[in-house]
Amino acid sequence: MAVSRCPSLREVLDGHGIVRIAGAHSALGARIAEESGFNAVWSSSLEVSAARCLPDASLLSMAEYVEAARHMQSQVGIPVVADVDTGYGNNLNVAHMVHEYEAAGITAVCMEDKVFPKMNSFVATPHTLLETSVFASKIAVAKSSQRRKDFMLIARTEALIDGRSMDEALARCTAYVDAGADGLLIHSKQATNAQIVDFMAKWRGVVPIIVVPTTYPSWKIQDMAAAGISAVIYANQGLRATITALRKAYGEIIKSGSSESIESLIAPVRDVFGLQDLEEWTALESTHA
Amino acid sequence: MAVSRCPSLREVLDGHGIVRIAGAHSALGARIAEESGFNAVWSSSLEVSAARCLPDASLLSMAEYVEAARHMQSQVGIPVVADVDTGYGNNLNVAHMVHEYEAAGITAVCMEDKVFPKMNSFVATPHTLLETSVFASKIAVAKSSQRRKDFMLIARTEALIDGRSMDEALARCTAYVDAGADGLLIHSKQATNAQIVDFMAKWRGVVPIIVVPTTYPSWKIQDMAAAGISAVIYANQGLRATITALRKAYGEIIKSGSSESIESLIAPVRDVFGLQDLEEWTALESTHA
Amino acid sequence: MAVSRCPSLREVLDGHGIVRIAGAHSALGARIAEESGFNAVWSSSLEVSAARCLPDASLLSMAEYVEAARHMQSQVGIPVVADVDTGYGNNLNVAHMVHEYEAAGITAVCMEDKVFPKMNSFVATPHTLLETSVFASKIAVAKSSQRRKDFMLIARTEALIDGRSMDEALARCTAYVDAGADGLLIHSKQATNAQIVDFMAKWRGVVPIIVVPTTYPSWKIQDMAAAGISAVIYANQGLRATITALRKAYGEIIKSGSSESIESLIAPVRDVFGLQDLEEWTALESTHA
Amino acid sequence: MAVSRCPSLREVLDGHGIVRIAGAHSALGARIAEESGFNAVWSSSLEVSAARCLPDASLLSMAEYVEAARHMQSQVGIPVVADVDTGYGNNLNVAHMVHEYEAAGITAVCMEDKVFPKMNSFVATPHTLLETSVFASKIAVAKSSQRRKDFMLIARTEALIDGRSMDEALARCTAYVDAGADGLLIHSKQATNAQIVDFMAKWRGVVPIIVVPTTYPSWKIQDMAAAGISAVIYANQGLRATITALRKAYGEIIKSGSSESIESLIAPVRDVFGLQDLEEWTALESTHA
Repeated sequence: MAVSRCPSLREVLDGHGIVRIAGAHSALGARIAEESGFNAVWSSSLEVSAARCLPDASLLSMAEYVEAARHMQSQVGIPVVADVDTGYGNNLNVAHMVHEYEAAGITAVCMEDKVFPKMNSFVATPHTLLETSVFASKIAVAKSSQRRKDFMLIARTEALIDGRSMDEALARCTAYVDAGADGLLIHSKQATNAQIVDFMAKWRGVVPIIVVPTTYPSWKIQDMAAAGISAVIYANQGLRATITALRKAYGEIIKSGSSESIESLIAPVRDVFGLQDLEEWTALESTHA
Repeated sequence: MAVSRCPSLREVLDGHGIVRIAGAHSALGARIAEESGFNAVWSSSLEVSAARCLPDASLLSMAEYVEAARHMQSQVGIPVVADVDTGYGNNLNVAHMVHEYEAAGITAVCMEDKVFPKMNSFVATPHTLLETSVFASKIAVAKSSQRRKDFMLIARTEALIDGRSMDEALARCTAYVDAGADGLLIHSKQATNAQIVDFMAKWRGVVPIIVVPTTYPSWKIQDMAAAGISAVIYANQGLRATITALRKAYGEIIKSGSSESIESLIAPVRDVFGLQDLEEWTALESTHA
Repeated sequence: MAVSRCPSLREVLDGHGIVRIAGAHSALGARIAEESGFNAVWSSSLEVSAARCLPDASLLSMAEYVEAARHMQSQVGIPVVADVDTGYGNNLNVAHMVHEYEAAGITAVCMEDKVFPKMNSFVATPHTLLETSVFASKIAVAKSSQRRKDFMLIARTEALIDGRSMDEALARCTAYVDAGADGLLIHSKQATNAQIVDFMAKWRGVVPIIVVPTTYPSWKIQDMAAAGISAVIYANQGLRATITALRKAYGEIIKSGSSESIESLIAPVRDVFGLQDLEEWTALESTHA
Repeated sequence: MAVSRCPSLREVLDGHGIVRIAGAHSALGARIAEESGFNAVWSSSLEVSAARCLPDASLLSMAEYVEAARHMQSQVGIPVVADVDTGYGNNLNVAHMVHEYEAAGITAVCMEDKVFPKMNSFVATPHTLLETSVFASKIAVAKSSQRRKDFMLIARTEALIDGRSMDEALARCTAYVDAGADGLLIHSKQATNAQIVDFMAKWRGVVPIIVVPTTYPSWKIQDMAAAGISAVIYANQGLRATITALRKAYGEIIKSGSSESIESLIAPVRDVFGLQDLEEWTALESTHA
């Protein structure tokens, strides 16, 4: 059932070693992440747009992203960190974004320094960055727009994604923290974690640093922690596992002419009921009859 | 990309042997069903509510179900058959339901003869049925409310689910067809297909008959066709495969401390891009530059 | 701009004499009610459904009603009291309703003892009432589902609307308070306030009593207060004023072939900007440039 | 009730002299415009955002604007012309916009040549325009994305709003028509119609020209027609009349302590029922009983 009390991301960061965050796009995925032991959920723009068969390119509206985040947050007792892309426009859009995500019960958003409309970072296309000062202004607006004391604005730099220098990445992160960012997401899509390791060696700040090891999946979490990283987002593995599973299940039904051969490989219907909290819900009829 | 022309369910039924329908709750699932060879998609109330971690008990609103169906239909070239439960209330609700689903581009809905609010048929609880004449009236209203000539109203009887006699099931189906139903879904949750086989042997009507072999998964599609069945809905296997896949993927990341071990088992990011039609979308920038 | 802190209805009831509540269906209407001096807003099912040109007959979904209430509450510093009709179904629907309205920031809902789907009380048609004990059970479920301490469940009886006796109205209200109701709405559609006055003379409870003087508009608020009433809902006058205004404005433009003759009678564009908080919003660009 | 067949804007333009279009933000307003004699409805971004108490500055999402347009179109038999601002981003956003508005049953959209995020044209602030070729590209994408043959893309130039020369306005309009625009909206916010009259004298194209006489309300429709104008949008008078009416109604209730004094000035409840098609809806119960 909908959850009565959930810690904020800040509380989770304060209470753990390195925080494990799972990408998801539905309440179901968020809940399975929670039951699997994740400490937070990443309301991923890639996942949410892929669920609609639309590219992760600022096509879906903020209203649609905030709704996905609300649905997830309402069903888990761990915080949802919302991927808010570029903040959906300029300073005014950013203020509106903070109002709407706070109203949806979200305690942390992550905003990136690309120009709206953005394109997913893994697409081989130019990714224009905002001027540092312009993005810093957006961070300041976000922070001045929040009402909850523990709301976090995580600034994500795409400097390395865009081929900028490490010096620029560091300078941008410094400026973003100066503007009020409560955390940083440093993104790299190289085949190894070398850029991130280099960044961590040079970074002198104290806010939490978050990474997304999509292209360097062999990096162990204890090694990230040793490098000073505060949280790691496994951003899209759930989506990719879902795609494979659906292809196998649907494909086998078509090929074999029945679902018999997959029955033992897929969750029984009672597991669906469990994830729906069916017992708690049906008790409402009998308890109050 | 969004699809320009999709046949109605009626056209699909006219053009095939037995029609294979896959349960889904998102555009992504619908599209994978299409690429796997399914002929239609079942916008399943169980799946849509499970994606929200809510029981399949008339808790989600029609507005939410119709939106899910719209999202699916907009991204596939096969018809979406919408599970509309009880029609969400009385005759007025049914008329409104037909207006809204037609406006969403849906060409077939399936309405069942339970009382609102309903409970999922596989839950071991009493399932109160409407009087036959009352449900027949709802069918008549639905048919008089449609604007598209080829819109189909499939009547689903829960008579066997509710433990009524085969005679009653047959009588209800006759009354529903007399009231205007364009097709019938005859549901049974016994451990074998015996009830359905018996029904088919005794049924004398000509409208398409649809079955949902969740509890008799070994029934082969060619045997269903031989029994006179027009379409089969594999209603929840995709959802159940998704649950298993998410549990494995998330669980393995937590256990092993990285996503390395699952990388080869899950779809690559480029498959996500493929399902998002990324190439077609990005071409819009270059073609028109 | 969106409001940071709003008192709950309970706080407003505790801090006033009789509380004045205005019916509305949009944030704009809610804000004008607030600037006019109202102490709370009634998110009216009649208004919200009329804005969609649909009857007030449980046709719109809870998702649509809760969204309307959320939009209103987000833009005013006075509490929105949500008209939740019958609670949208049985005990399960009621629990879900409370979760969703609380998540939308609503601090008070008003649920009535009619059967779902309901019809607007002013429509001359039978209005079937639930058994007292069944509605009491719904109240108990609602109260056990809330998370905010000061969330209020107001029970509305349609006993007098349905032609039941005053004794039954009193007995129902007693049962509803015993079940946990935090307030009562006693509705009558007679041409005078006689029924309500009689009810107040006989009622011995202590929870706040709310009235809706649509059909006895001459009843002065100070006289209601003297009769022991805690709050009054002017439920639909704003909607009805809007209809008249739109008919006049549109009609005059068509008749005269220009909008010149109405210019001095309608708010200037700068008033629209004022209601949009335009200055506060545009300051976000310059302040943070 | 929801309408079965509505002509496209193109059909309306072909069948009339000058077409009268009323701004609205709800189905209710759209229906009153229709009953008043308007030939089409303008789904106004100013009105839709004002109803939410948010500035007309690209804050609301496309999903919210398209929903407002869908609600209006579903309840009237005249076409809704959707104000789609800048198209909500780049070429990709424009293609998605066309898909979504077509799916909502909209037959004409009006896109303007400002940069996203835009600010309302009547706000005294710089209004950056896109390069002509960039906006022409967006028009071409829109036209190549439509599926309905009679879907219209109206290009709106803000050249005069932005203080550009008449020559530039004419050159832009020529380029937009060359790119595929099916109509033009030429906007001016001077205190007289002089700029528009000048434009019409110099314009040599043949596509329909649309004007918005907010700041020159004395211009008579027959004189517009004589100047060669095809359609006129009274874009915000309904909203402004609503604001005045709500202030009067709410204010009077507060001041006088009852609603008695306004009863004769506002529509009776039966008019609300009429706009809700109550009789047609309730007939569904009896006819099919």
